[in-house]
Amino acid sequence: MHKTALIMAGGRGERFWPRSRKNLPKQFLSLTDDGKTMIQLTTERLLPIVAMEDIYIVTNRDYLPLIREQLPELPSENIICEPVGRNTAPCIALGAAHIAKKYGDEDAVMMVLPSDHLVKYSSLYQTTLRDACEVAQKGENLVTIGITPDYPETGYGYIKFVNEINDEDGRAFRVDSFTEKPDLEKAKEYLASDDYLWNSGMFLWKLSTIIRKYEELLPEIYDAMQKIKAAIGTPSQEQLIEELFPKLPSISIDYGIMEKAENIYTIPGTFGWDDVGSWLALERIKKSNEFGNIVDGNIVTINTSNCIIQGTEKLIATVGLKDLVIVDTKDATLICDRDHTADIKKVLENLKICNRNEYL
Amino acid sequence: MHKTALIMAGGRGERFWPRSRKNLPKQFLSLTDDGKTMIQLTTERLLPIVAMEDIYIVTNRDYLPLIREQLPELPSENIICEPVGRNTAPCIALGAAHIAKKYGDEDAVMMVLPSDHLVKYSSLYQTTLRDACEVAQKGENLVTIGITPDYPETGYGYIKFVNEINDEDGRAFRVDSFTEKPDLEKAKEYLASDDYLWNSGMFLWKLSTIIRKYEELLPEIYDAMQKIKAAIGTPSQEQLIEELFPKLPSISIDYGIMEKAENIYTIPGTFGWDDVGSWLALERIKKSNEFGNIVDGNIVTINTSNCIIQGTEKLIATVGLKDLVIVDTKDATLICDRDHTADIKKVLENLKICNRNEYL
Repeated sequence: MHKTALIMAGGRGERFWPRSRKNLPKQFLSLTDDGKTMIQLTTERLLPIVAMEDIYIVTNRDYLPLIREQLPELPSENIICEPVGRNTAPCIALGAAHIAKKYGDEDAVMMVLPSDHLVKYSSLYQTTLRDACEVAQKGENLVTIGITPDYPETGYGYIKFVNEINDEDGRAFRVDSFTEKPDLEKAKEYLASDDYLWNSGMFLWKLSTIIRKYEELLPEIYDAMQKIKAAIGTPSQEQLIEELFPKLPSISIDYGIMEKAENIYTIPGTFGWDDVGSWLALERIKKSNEFGNIVDGNIVTINTSNCIIQGTEKLIATVGLKDLVIVDTKDATLICDRDHTADIKKVLENLKICNRNEYL
Repeated sequence: MHKTALIMAGGRGERFWPRSRKNLPKQFLSLTDDGKTMIQLTTERLLPIVAMEDIYIVTNRDYLPLIREQLPELPSENIICEPVGRNTAPCIALGAAHIAKKYGDEDAVMMVLPSDHLVKYSSLYQTTLRDACEVAQKGENLVTIGITPDYPETGYGYIKFVNEINDEDGRAFRVDSFTEKPDLEKAKEYLASDDYLWNSGMFLWKLSTIIRKYEELLPEIYDAMQKIKAAIGTPSQEQLIEELFPKLPSISIDYGIMEKAENIYTIPGTFGWDDVGSWLALERIKKSNEFGNIVDGNIVTINTSNCIIQGTEKLIATVGLKDLVIVDTKDATLICDRDHTADIKKVLENLKICNRNEYL
């Protein structure tokens, strides 16, 4: 079985400001103690199942230098640039066109993976993806990795599955429906019912399957994909993508295909997945000290507890604090109550209004 | 009447860290909106009553360049350097020796003033000092300026006075006793009784009077003062001060003379005195915005109230905060709960232990 992977790395998330910036989004940051960036970790954990030359990264062209720098061993033709962001359905179509053009092998399995999530247990992750590849190889199955929920999270979409097993080993369940982010009451119900998984945004299918689904469900994107595929490797490639891509509808793969297609299966993942959605995620992925503080940098704390303090060489001294997130960078310092991290985007809105783009 | 002033500027206070440092203590900082430093303001408000050439500053020799820079019009022979800090009694004796040597005029009045306090109503201050000079000129009076208390402060010493008026205009009251910093209950009693004033550390006397008091009550310091006075202007001046001064007992003028002498008078001051004892003082001396924040620098606040934020060019963004003091400098940032400003010194202790003297 020929396995390929498409890593989606075009995100411009604001939740790790001021460490993340428009020109350095989360996937290019190192948030773990090993010093590796999110996209480096994502690639590294794929290598036991996909060869480096079969890993593709689709991103905004602004990030091309960052990807070359952080992944020097990735063939440069495997970096696919979107002229603009157009949500996941056009993004994946662009990737599929490139992969199909190169291999002509439409029975190859294509994994689609986010670039900015973390996995605690890599070998479990690899086993899950191998299993998912096998399910994806059969018929016209579309497979998504669901995450067994730990708690009633209201920030994720959920996958409802039915106890109808697809493969002989009992690994994949038929998906009943995808649901939007629930309120807390619903999320609690979902957690208690054992019929729901978190939607992790990881998908697997044969190239031929997904191309047929685009033809059937998103014909406009399919047409563009076919034209782009034909032009790849010719002098008109770049100009054609530049012309066609921005006109495509901005639509997610979930909404455009997964919620409408048949033969959707999910494999529950229990590999310590984390979407690292805010600074508070550091409490799950880094060790806290005896006072419950997560501390990196040149820090002196006096009577300070339950704080996340991310500094640099500059001295940060804290006195009598609790429950704060403090992030220092060369040109900006954030001090945020832990219950208000969702409001970091208001800082960025304020800066935008004032045209202070150097901080975005 | 010949009026002279001795400004004491040797303090090494730590309460304005990280803005104040060992090599830049509070008296050399600008904490008001006018951009002037504390010692500049102290000098400026004296000029309507004392000529610049009659103002003396006694300080640690490390601060000589700062004083020359901040007060370029002060004659350089009016800067008196202590080789080491030895509390106020030796400090004032050293100043008195210099002033007595220059003028020979022992009937001159000498005002002794801190360098790092603020006054809101300068003309009231000047009137009070002029009145005090008149009282000080009579007999062997020692005069101290007391501050009419606003609230039961436990951080100051108090002066108990009796309703026995010294001068015909009814301005000066006889001092009954000086008291140590009280506990809150005592402070409330003092406030209610109307018999107590805050001890501001401002003193006035004739040169001849204070020299006689040293002879009587602090003979060891008196002897050194006489030897130093004789040597001033000779080649041995510096060496003699270097030799004698460090051996003097470290004793305050309050304890050494004021609490023991007769003829102590106080004039109540109502000129908006502030000792600017911690970062919280900024709430009294600067304007707060509609959210109760005192903000200087490049600051974005979201849902932030009752905070003191002192920045520089670097952006500071605050989200969901209240009741904090945030002070940014080039190499260090302090974030401190407003009820814990007294613990800033623990940061400095920690830095000392770790030999990180660059931050002290």
